[in-house]
Amino acid sequence: MNGEPQQTDTQGKLRHFLSIEGFRREQLVQILDAAESFAMLPGRQVKKVPLLRGKIITNLFFENSTRTRTTFELAAKLLSADVINFNVNVSATSKGETLLDTLRNIEAMHSDMFVVRHHASGAAHFIAQHVAPGVSVINAGDGRHAHPTQAMLDMFTIRRHKGDFTPLRVAIVGDIQHSRVARSQIMALNILGVSEVRVVAPRTLLPADVRTLGVHVFHDLEQGIEDVDVIIMLRLQRERMDNALLPSAHEYFQLWGLTQERLQRARPDAIVMHPGPINRGVEITSEVADGPQSVILQQVSYGIAVRMAVMSMAMGNRSGDQGT
Amino acid sequence: MNGEPQQTDTQGKLRHFLSIEGFRREQLVQILDAAESFAMLPGRQVKKVPLLRGKIITNLFFENSTRTRTTFELAAKLLSADVINFNVNVSATSKGETLLDTLRNIEAMHSDMFVVRHHASGAAHFIAQHVAPGVSVINAGDGRHAHPTQAMLDMFTIRRHKGDFTPLRVAIVGDIQHSRVARSQIMALNILGVSEVRVVAPRTLLPADVRTLGVHVFHDLEQGIEDVDVIIMLRLQRERMDNALLPSAHEYFQLWGLTQERLQRARPDAIVMHPGPINRGVEITSEVADGPQSVILQQVSYGIAVRMAVMSMAMGNRSGDQGT
Amino acid sequence: MNGEPQQTDTQGKLRHFLSIEGFRREQLVQILDAAESFAMLPGRQVKKVPLLRGKIITNLFFENSTRTRTTFELAAKLLSADVINFNVNVSATSKGETLLDTLRNIEAMHSDMFVVRHHASGAAHFIAQHVAPGVSVINAGDGRHAHPTQAMLDMFTIRRHKGDFTPLRVAIVGDIQHSRVARSQIMALNILGVSEVRVVAPRTLLPADVRTLGVHVFHDLEQGIEDVDVIIMLRLQRERMDNALLPSAHEYFQLWGLTQERLQRARPDAIVMHPGPINRGVEITSEVADGPQSVILQQVSYGIAVRMAVMSMAMGNRSGDQGT
Repeated sequence: MNGEPQQTDTQGKLRHFLSIEGFRREQLVQILDAAESFAMLPGRQVKKVPLLRGKIITNLFFENSTRTRTTFELAAKLLSADVINFNVNVSATSKGETLLDTLRNIEAMHSDMFVVRHHASGAAHFIAQHVAPGVSVINAGDGRHAHPTQAMLDMFTIRRHKGDFTPLRVAIVGDIQHSRVARSQIMALNILGVSEVRVVAPRTLLPADVRTLGVHVFHDLEQGIEDVDVIIMLRLQRERMDNALLPSAHEYFQLWGLTQERLQRARPDAIVMHPGPINRGVEITSEVADGPQSVILQQVSYGIAVRMAVMSMAMGNRSGDQGT
Repeated sequence: MNGEPQQTDTQGKLRHFLSIEGFRREQLVQILDAAESFAMLPGRQVKKVPLLRGKIITNLFFENSTRTRTTFELAAKLLSADVINFNVNVSATSKGETLLDTLRNIEAMHSDMFVVRHHASGAAHFIAQHVAPGVSVINAGDGRHAHPTQAMLDMFTIRRHKGDFTPLRVAIVGDIQHSRVARSQIMALNILGVSEVRVVAPRTLLPADVRTLGVHVFHDLEQGIEDVDVIIMLRLQRERMDNALLPSAHEYFQLWGLTQERLQRARPDAIVMHPGPINRGVEITSEVADGPQSVILQQVSYGIAVRMAVMSMAMGNRSGDQGT
Repeated sequence: MNGEPQQTDTQGKLRHFLSIEGFRREQLVQILDAAESFAMLPGRQVKKVPLLRGKIITNLFFENSTRTRTTFELAAKLLSADVINFNVNVSATSKGETLLDTLRNIEAMHSDMFVVRHHASGAAHFIAQHVAPGVSVINAGDGRHAHPTQAMLDMFTIRRHKGDFTPLRVAIVGDIQHSRVARSQIMALNILGVSEVRVVAPRTLLPADVRTLGVHVFHDLEQGIEDVDVIIMLRLQRERMDNALLPSAHEYFQLWGLTQERLQRARPDAIVMHPGPINRGVEITSEVADGPQSVILQQVSYGIAVRMAVMSMAMGNRSGDQGT
C-alpha cells in the first residue's frame, strides 16, 4: 500500500477512480460504455436500479460544493445505495484534529465507498491509501490536480455527439493553470486518441509545464478554435482577477469571451461545452450558451450516468474480489 | 408552456401544486379526502407506504426553513421516495450563476419532483414552466405570494373539527400584508364556500387590494372575532417592528394579542389555529395557545398527511400520463 | 409521565436511553451482547439488516456535532431505517420559538425515534417526558450530564479486550469536571463491577462531588495509572485554557500528557482509549495514540455496533408493546 494507490485490481477491474492518469484507452471506453446503459433518454425518467442496494456511500466533502455533492448523491440513490453526507468543514477538523485522525476515524466507520472533495491536491489519493481493502474512493475534485468524473462526463458528451474520437480537434479555453478539470480532460482526450488537443489561454493562466501535457498552445482565441470540432470553455474563477492575474471581467470578455461571431471560426458542427456554473458575458455569451451548438445542459444529465457507471463498476469489482 | 403553467392535466388531475388559485371546490375536497387516508390517529404511528418507491424528490430551498423542509422530507420518506436536499443558498448561485442556469441544471438532473421554496413571488411557477413534461413542482412558499400546502393543512384541520365548511365564519388575524399563508387561506376558504372570511389587522398590515379578495375587513380584534367558528392567528414577523410598520411587541399585544378573555367573543366551540412558530405573549397568550380550543399541534401533524396527499396525487397523475 | 421518564418498560425492556444511571448490570450486559451481533469483524464489511425497515429516526441536534450525528445516521441506515437530520440551530428556535414549542412540534411530526444532542443538561430527559407513548429517545450528549452511548461503546471496547470486568482497574484521565462522557463511564464501570475506578485530574478539573461517584481520586498521572488495566484519556477542551482553569497546552502536556514512558507504569497489557478527536501532543503523544496498546480506532467502529444495539432494542421493545 506504499506509494501510489492502484486504481484497478490485478485483473484490471476498477477499484478507485482518482485520476485519469494511468488508465488505458479500453478502460476509459469501458466506463463510457457502462454510462451509456444509464444515460437518460429525452422525455424518459431515470429509473432506479438495485445495483448498490445495501451499500453505504459517504460523501466526504472538505470543500463546499452543493452541486457536485448533489450529483453524486443522486447517482448513488439511483443505484439504490444509502448516502451519508459528511461535510468536514463543520466537523472535527475545526476542533484541531489532524487530517490523518479524521481519515482513520472515517475508515473505522466502514462505508463501502467514499466520494472525496478536498482543496488540497492529492487528498483523494491519500485517503485511498488508508482505506480498508474492500473500500472504494472516488475523487470528486482535489485542489488543482484532478476531477476525473467531470472529465469523463465531458468525454461521454463528446462521444454522444461525435462518435469517434480519432479525427477530432478539441480546444480547451480559459484558465488552464488553476483547473483540475482541464488537466483531467487533456489526459482523457490524449488517451482516447483525439487528433489534436489545444489549450487556448492568456499566458498568465497557463501552467509552467503546459508543453509537457501533449497539447498545442494558443494565445489567441480565434486562432485557437479555428476548425475545431469541440470547444470546451472553462469556468473563470472571479477571484483570479483580484489576484491581478487577470484584468476586469469586461476586458477578459473582449479578448477571451466566446461569441457567436467567433464561434464561426470553428467547424460548422462544432459543439460548445462548459462545466457550469456559467459566467454569462464573461467567458461566454448567452447567445452561445443557449444556442444550437451548446451541449451544456446535456453535460449535467450525462454526469449522473457517468457517475453511476463509475460507482457501480468500482463496487461491482469489489464484490467480485470478495466472492459476495 | 407559455404563460401560467397548468396545475392540472387535461383530465383535471393534479400535476403541480403552486397556488390555490384556479382550483375548483371538488379538486380541493379531493386533496382533503386523500389526506384523510394518510392522517395519523392519536396514539398510532405513521405507517410508511410504497406509493412513491423508486421516485426521487428534490427539496430545492432558496430560503432557509428547516421546519418546512423537514415536513416535506418526512412526507416524502413516508411515501418511500428518496429525498435530496438542495440548499441553493450555499450553492452555485453564490458563484454568480443566474437563476435560469440553476434551474436548467436542476432540470437536467431529472428528479421526479421538486419542492421549491424561494423568497421571490412567482419562483415556483417559473420553475414549473421550465421542468420537463413528466416532472411535478410543489410550492413550499414563494415570497408573499402563496404557500398552498400550508393553506390546505389549515383547511384539513378545520374540516376535521367542523365538518361542513358552508356555515363557517373564519377570522384571519395579524399581518395579512406580508403573509403568503393568508393569501392562500383566503382563496381556499372562499373556494370551499365558507359563510364569511374576515381579516383582522391594523391598517399598516393590510394589502392595498384587500377588498378585492372577498373578505370583510376589521380593524378591531374583539369585533373581528365576534361569533366566529375559526380563528387563524398569523405569525408576527418581528422584523416588521424594525420597519416602523408596528409599535413594540408589548404594544402590539395590547391591541392584537389573543387572550382567553378576548376569545370569549368567538363562538364557544371556536377553534384557534396558528402556523407556528408562536411568539408567546405577542400575538397569542400561552393560556390560549395551550388551551382546550387550540388545535395548533394538530396542524403540524395534519401537515404531513396533506403533503403526502399532494405529493402522491401529483406523482400518481404523472405516472398515469405516461402509461407506466 | 411526571418526574423522571422511565428508560425501561414494566417488563424491564429498553425504551429510552438517556443515562447510564438506573440500569442494572444485566441490562448493560444485554446491550453489550446485542452489540456483539452487530460488531464488524476486521476485513469484513458491515451488513445492512432490515430490523428497523419502515421506521423514521430523527437526529435532533441542538448542538453541532457532525461526527456523532454521522455515527447515529450510519447505525440507523444499517438498520434500514429512514433518517431525517433536524439541526435546530438554524431552525425555528432562532425565530424566537420556545424550546417547549419546538418539542411539541417535533412530537407532532411523529418520528419513531429521536436522537437528541443538546448543550443543556437534562434536555434528552425533558424531551422523553413529552414524546408520545410509542416514541423512543436516545441521548447523544446533553450538557455536562451524560453521553450514555459513548460510555457503552467504551465498555464494549473494554470487554472485547479484557473479557471480564470484575478484576479490572480503570483510570479516567483529564477534564472530569466538564465531561459528560466521564460521568457516564464512571457509572457504567461501577455497575459492571470493576475492581477500581480512578479519576486522574488536576484539582481545577474535578467536580465538587467527585468523592460521591465511587472513585479514587489521583492528582498525579504516574501514580494514577500505576498497575491499571485500562486508561481512558478524555479530550481536553481547549476553551478551558482560555478560562484560566488550565495553563498552556504545553504545560498541560508536561504534567498530564500520556507518553510511552509514563504508560510503562500501567500493566503491560493495558489498553489506551480516547473518545476523539485527539489533541496530539496535548493529552497524548502520537507514539501512544498510534501504538500497539491503543484501541482508539476500534472505539469508533464499535460505536456503530453499540448504537445499532441500543436503537434496535429500544424499537423492538416498542413494537412488542403495541403487538405489531
